[in-house]
Amino acid sequence: MASAGCAVVFENELRVIERPRPIPAEDEVLIRLRRGGICNTDHELMRGYKHFSGTLGHEFVGEVIEGPAEWLGRRVVGEINISCGICDMCHGGIPTQCRERRVLGILNYDGAFADVFRLSQRNLWPVPDSIPDDCAVFTEPLAAACQILEMAHLRPADRVVLIGAGKLGLLAAQVVRLTGVDFSVVVRHDTQAARLKNWGIQPVPRSAVSDGSADVVIDCTGTAGGFADALDMVRPRGSIMLKSTYHDLPQADLTRVVTQEIHLIGSRCGPFGAALRLLEQGLVDVASLIEAHYPLSEAVRAFEHAARPGALKVLLTPG
Amino acid sequence: MASAGCAVVFENELRVIERPRPIPAEDEVLIRLRRGGICNTDHELMRGYKHFSGTLGHEFVGEVIEGPAEWLGRRVVGEINISCGICDMCHGGIPTQCRERRVLGILNYDGAFADVFRLSQRNLWPVPDSIPDDCAVFTEPLAAACQILEMAHLRPADRVVLIGAGKLGLLAAQVVRLTGVDFSVVVRHDTQAARLKNWGIQPVPRSAVSDGSADVVIDCTGTAGGFADALDMVRPRGSIMLKSTYHDLPQADLTRVVTQEIHLIGSRCGPFGAALRLLEQGLVDVASLIEAHYPLSEAVRAFEHAARPGALKVLLTPG
Repeated sequence: MASAGCAVVFENELRVIERPRPIPAEDEVLIRLRRGGICNTDHELMRGYKHFSGTLGHEFVGEVIEGPAEWLGRRVVGEINISCGICDMCHGGIPTQCRERRVLGILNYDGAFADVFRLSQRNLWPVPDSIPDDCAVFTEPLAAACQILEMAHLRPADRVVLIGAGKLGLLAAQVVRLTGVDFSVVVRHDTQAARLKNWGIQPVPRSAVSDGSADVVIDCTGTAGGFADALDMVRPRGSIMLKSTYHDLPQADLTRVVTQEIHLIGSRCGPFGAALRLLEQGLVDVASLIEAHYPLSEAVRAFEHAARPGALKVLLTPG
Repeated sequence: MASAGCAVVFENELRVIERPRPIPAEDEVLIRLRRGGICNTDHELMRGYKHFSGTLGHEFVGEVIEGPAEWLGRRVVGEINISCGICDMCHGGIPTQCRERRVLGILNYDGAFADVFRLSQRNLWPVPDSIPDDCAVFTEPLAAACQILEMAHLRPADRVVLIGAGKLGLLAAQVVRLTGVDFSVVVRHDTQAARLKNWGIQPVPRSAVSDGSADVVIDCTGTAGGFADALDMVRPRGSIMLKSTYHDLPQADLTRVVTQEIHLIGSRCGPFGAALRLLEQGLVDVASLIEAHYPLSEAVRAFEHAARPGALKVLLTPG
């Protein structure tokens, strides 16, 4: 039997356990973790989302230690949706919405917060040498931010407002900045404002955004109050991009969606290729979003840290 | 003073009053009512929507009895949004979403349920002789049904499901049928089913629509339960068209909008020209949707009739 390793498991409570090295299926490789990133979704899963039980983790960069020659020894990131390849969504070119998908560390597939874990070869993307591990681990959430541009056409002349400048919102803000739109981000805290200014993005208080003034509002709040704010800010016939999952079942003023003929557009997982290009070309700053590093063995403390209000990215390291 | 006439007024309660003939502003004409149509929005206004108080009525066909020569004596229908002509929406070619709009019988503008009423000339459309009054009065709601096709592209190969086959839903169904899509309408009652079959549209029970199967769902229910049904029926990356205003503030599963990357698209007032063409060419059947006629003087009874569950269109006639 191969040597054991540790894994970050949630079963009613979060624990770090020892487990035998996983045995890859025919289409899978084994990956040794180099960095893992803790996401709000991980916290949602521990609060009961999808009745999750198992190994957590879907943001990672690692090294292939078992698999076919073309992947062996390569540094990789991985898409999180393990798709069936045969349903209408897969055939329609939308494998991220596969009807039968499993999802790394989220749905029926062991996650990446482990010394060694499995993943389908088809999900792998090689990481260019110029992208350090601490940046490559942001590929998955950065791809999700890029998905905003996959799902809607932001025109350079548009007036765009982003609300919810947390971990994902700050990545989304950097991606949106690159489109040249007339852009502002609603902030509540000075630290957010300073960070945004550093990137050349205009931080504004909520009161600075006139009602009905935005062509597009990007809602990264995941709250009913945030969605209500988005409805106030968007112009008639404008668009609201929904980027975060919501707690419970929010009340939503759908009547205004009708009478103002608003488009609501959900977006989820995004294009890894685009995210890697943006990282390689240094067009987004992810390094400054790192809040702390913890070894896998201290994952429980790492999750506690990541759960603090306003906390940015907490990374897990081997060992 | 010109002769008095009656008007259907809501001020805490619905009454038919005598009032002096209105005096048109410079850009307005006077119109003598030939038919008025009672809409669900009229009932919503009486339940407190927009804190309405005044003369009701926005669906009408009438004859111009005072105004410039080019309109005098003509039979007309009229758009309901009285727009400012100078705001960004008006300049952007979207006067129905005018920032400063008044709305006939809905917002700061006396309605059409009166022997004689005023309307801006710019809102008028002449009615072709081949369209009888009982059909022409449907121009406004039929235009609203056409707005579905203004706001979204229904592709002929799409699988489309409509829910909420009431007054507006039955008009929307007929417009959607003309696109050639694979179309079914969810019904609860045999009378709806028979009517739809008559038009060559497939009525189905809710249970016949598989979850995640529809490319487009058209929600004419205006209820939280209807919206939840729409979310169940639509496929990932599909669209939900919202056509009816909702009671109160519905709970809405926005998380599914995000994770399934769904488009929600609101639509409101529509193109009168298209509606008149469909009526003139006999491509939609509105005559069979008429439930009853009442003279203006019996408007209170007419409104009671229109409020019965399942009631279709109740028309008001002069006198």
